[in-house]
Amino acid sequence: MKQFTSVLDVPDVQALIREALALKANPFAHQHLGKNRTLGLVFLNPSLRTRMSTQIAAQQLGMNVITLNADKDGWALEFQDGAVMNGNTVEHIRDAAPVLGSYCDIIGVRCFPGLQSREMDDSEHIMRAFIRHTGKPYVSLESATLHPLQSLADAITLTETRPKHRPKVVLTWAPHIKPIPHAVANSFAEWVNRLDVELVVTHPEGYALNPKFTGTARVEHNQQKALEGADFVYVKNWSSYSEYGKILNQDSTWMLTQRHLLETNQARVMHCLPVRRNVELSDEILNSPASLVQEQARNRVYAAQAVLKQLLENN
Amino acid sequence: MKQFTSVLDVPDVQALIREALALKANPFAHQHLGKNRTLGLVFLNPSLRTRMSTQIAAQQLGMNVITLNADKDGWALEFQDGAVMNGNTVEHIRDAAPVLGSYCDIIGVRCFPGLQSREMDDSEHIMRAFIRHTGKPYVSLESATLHPLQSLADAITLTETRPKHRPKVVLTWAPHIKPIPHAVANSFAEWVNRLDVELVVTHPEGYALNPKFTGTARVEHNQQKALEGADFVYVKNWSSYSEYGKILNQDSTWMLTQRHLLETNQARVMHCLPVRRNVELSDEILNSPASLVQEQARNRVYAAQAVLKQLLENN
Amino acid sequence: MKQFTSVLDVPDVQALIREALALKANPFAHQHLGKNRTLGLVFLNPSLRTRMSTQIAAQQLGMNVITLNADKDGWALEFQDGAVMNGNTVEHIRDAAPVLGSYCDIIGVRCFPGLQSREMDDSEHIMRAFIRHTGKPYVSLESATLHPLQSLADAITLTETRPKHRPKVVLTWAPHIKPIPHAVANSFAEWVNRLDVELVVTHPEGYALNPKFTGTARVEHNQQKALEGADFVYVKNWSSYSEYGKILNQDSTWMLTQRHLLETNQARVMHCLPVRRNVELSDEILNSPASLVQEQARNRVYAAQAVLKQLLENN
Repeated sequence: MKQFTSVLDVPDVQALIREALALKANPFAHQHLGKNRTLGLVFLNPSLRTRMSTQIAAQQLGMNVITLNADKDGWALEFQDGAVMNGNTVEHIRDAAPVLGSYCDIIGVRCFPGLQSREMDDSEHIMRAFIRHTGKPYVSLESATLHPLQSLADAITLTETRPKHRPKVVLTWAPHIKPIPHAVANSFAEWVNRLDVELVVTHPEGYALNPKFTGTARVEHNQQKALEGADFVYVKNWSSYSEYGKILNQDSTWMLTQRHLLETNQARVMHCLPVRRNVELSDEILNSPASLVQEQARNRVYAAQAVLKQLLENN
Repeated sequence: MKQFTSVLDVPDVQALIREALALKANPFAHQHLGKNRTLGLVFLNPSLRTRMSTQIAAQQLGMNVITLNADKDGWALEFQDGAVMNGNTVEHIRDAAPVLGSYCDIIGVRCFPGLQSREMDDSEHIMRAFIRHTGKPYVSLESATLHPLQSLADAITLTETRPKHRPKVVLTWAPHIKPIPHAVANSFAEWVNRLDVELVVTHPEGYALNPKFTGTARVEHNQQKALEGADFVYVKNWSSYSEYGKILNQDSTWMLTQRHLLETNQARVMHCLPVRRNVELSDEILNSPASLVQEQARNRVYAAQAVLKQLLENN
Repeated sequence: MKQFTSVLDVPDVQALIREALALKANPFAHQHLGKNRTLGLVFLNPSLRTRMSTQIAAQQLGMNVITLNADKDGWALEFQDGAVMNGNTVEHIRDAAPVLGSYCDIIGVRCFPGLQSREMDDSEHIMRAFIRHTGKPYVSLESATLHPLQSLADAITLTETRPKHRPKVVLTWAPHIKPIPHAVANSFAEWVNRLDVELVVTHPEGYALNPKFTGTARVEHNQQKALEGADFVYVKNWSSYSEYGKILNQDSTWMLTQRHLLETNQARVMHCLPVRRNVELSDEILNSPASLVQEQARNRVYAAQAVLKQLLENN
């Protein structure tokens, strides 16, 4: 594995999940692997969970970590080739990225979508520019369309918790007050489609995700029907993809509550955090044993550690 | 010791001071104690001295340190149970704190008072929420009402410097241009009351501290009388506690100058820094050998190291 | 070497360059030198390259690093002796610096010029106050007038790349849209004057640098004439020194393009980065093998490492 930007980069998803579970059982077993290797983390957007879990994962492998808060340092990067830089951007990615690449052994970047231009966000031009110009192994800390470290943590959590039978997993849209990227939902669908589960996606009209990521998942607009017999319910808001970046609906009946779980198979409930309580998901669920959100958050460390381990071993 | 939020958490104050002095003599003697243990530092407010000294203390014990600047990352936490989170807060402490707890072995939080509601500040609701929901050993990096790492450093400095006789220690209010929390003053009184000293607190009318913390200390409104025969003078501003958070007085005659020290017993002068020169304390004192402010600042490292050592050993 | 603020602090420039090249060949050979030593980095201004390269250099020597972003933490320092601090500054350098000095073994500070008062900037009052009051070995991370870590990296790059004959090095002014400090240009001239090269400085009228730094370098106002036969061209903008801090000229014919290189001796082109593409320097040069900018950036690590190594060994 040379880069980790999507499930498509992973040669063997089950092996990566097993690796993560082995690291969870024994986090310090490979402390010499990262000795004298430096992980460079670039945040073009805020981050707390990803920042902490990736840093801890790297330290558990013995790596040094260097963090650049490019959002707050006002490091305005130019991505356009041929630009005459007499405006607000102060450094071109073609100059900045190779420097990062020469200072660090692995590069991680967080670059959210602008939610203004679907074409630009779908092109992942920022992530692609970093990968091309750093020339080093790359780990996505969430890109415009995907959040694979979250999805790997979700897959680890599903694997740890799954029943004996082939489980039914429902990804349900939930209300939110702000326009939210599609990355977590896209990425969850993409990964879960590789697991031996039945995936159903449910959302109001106008909220269809990019089928490139949801693939074979069944779409069901009736949330109650979708939830019938579910073993896992993944709750997430996203803005419209067709009317790109827009909020079309804030219908609070879509907020997941205990009542919604009545027809499920005692479903466990997942969310990537941060969660808007009593807007996306009710207190009663989050405070109950049905919630897996803390297990997911904890597995972020082992997801990152498994990915960094493979990048260290293969590069 | 499971938490360090106040002198009341310390089973043996003298033993903790001795521990700190032993670490000062030999800072790297326990470098294996913190191996593979992570200290998570959360700053809801700015910090320089506390941040640096705690980080150095942890590194001297071999710990990893992860810092979250929650103030600048705009990580708006919700503390109200049952809140419908459709406003500015993006994550509930009930979800955020357990994640911190699962990532780190010891948690430190800095949470200043709002100085708007005395009841809310006195309840220490922010600190209590972190302690309850992280479930990990906790070290206060200054809370709404107390700053025990500063007070321990002050106690170490007093111990190193004290004369043979039972010393007289005077905590004197000083002017300032902004409304300042009570934490350093409260905490100093609370700790010094555990040492074998005579404590006198002096301040203008309207500036009485919470007697919960000053305890048996004598209060004397005449500053000159209070200072007579003092061996140590601790200079500090605080806002009014009765007219909560207000500035009632900026009388510059309360600024400590060389003239104020004439009737003392060649008193050594203390301040927690940062100090407003020539507003709280005169240049002539700060530049003279009477000043202990640098010794106090240096002892912050060993105060933090002694506390972290005990938290590592007992948890 | 007790401090590294200028080439004048370096007892043997060639030995320091050789040290850096040896570290580049074997970066982890001295990992025990920095064990239990702490480098404190204070940024009064933004930094990415200097921050990263210095941190990596220190880690490769086994040091701990602590970083203070004083610019963003709103740590408003007072530098005036005797000031009555009833305004915006919250801590005097006479109190803050000794604390840094007691916490760290080596101090590095970045302090840009204000570009308002030439006398104040030339006095380097901020850097001098840090050096005087920390009392510890000091490494400049760029000061008001000089940027010696950049210049050492430039000298390393020149040494690695120089032809057999005594090379001609041309420092050429380039246009920019903002008023830029003189530090990189001053410092480059000061260092290159110590190497066995011919240095020519070219700039429009009104842009003469402080002769204290350019020394024996020949000044040639005709850029084309200056470039004739050049082996190396160093491109850099600076604001006027005589009409201090002003932009007198934005003449785009001064932007270095392939056409400017025709009469050179297949010159290699240098720039300290960040570079405004197609304002200071053309894309065609930056994307061509003539460009040395990535080599310079990479050598920042070994420049910092050689300096830190000598400071650790001699203090």
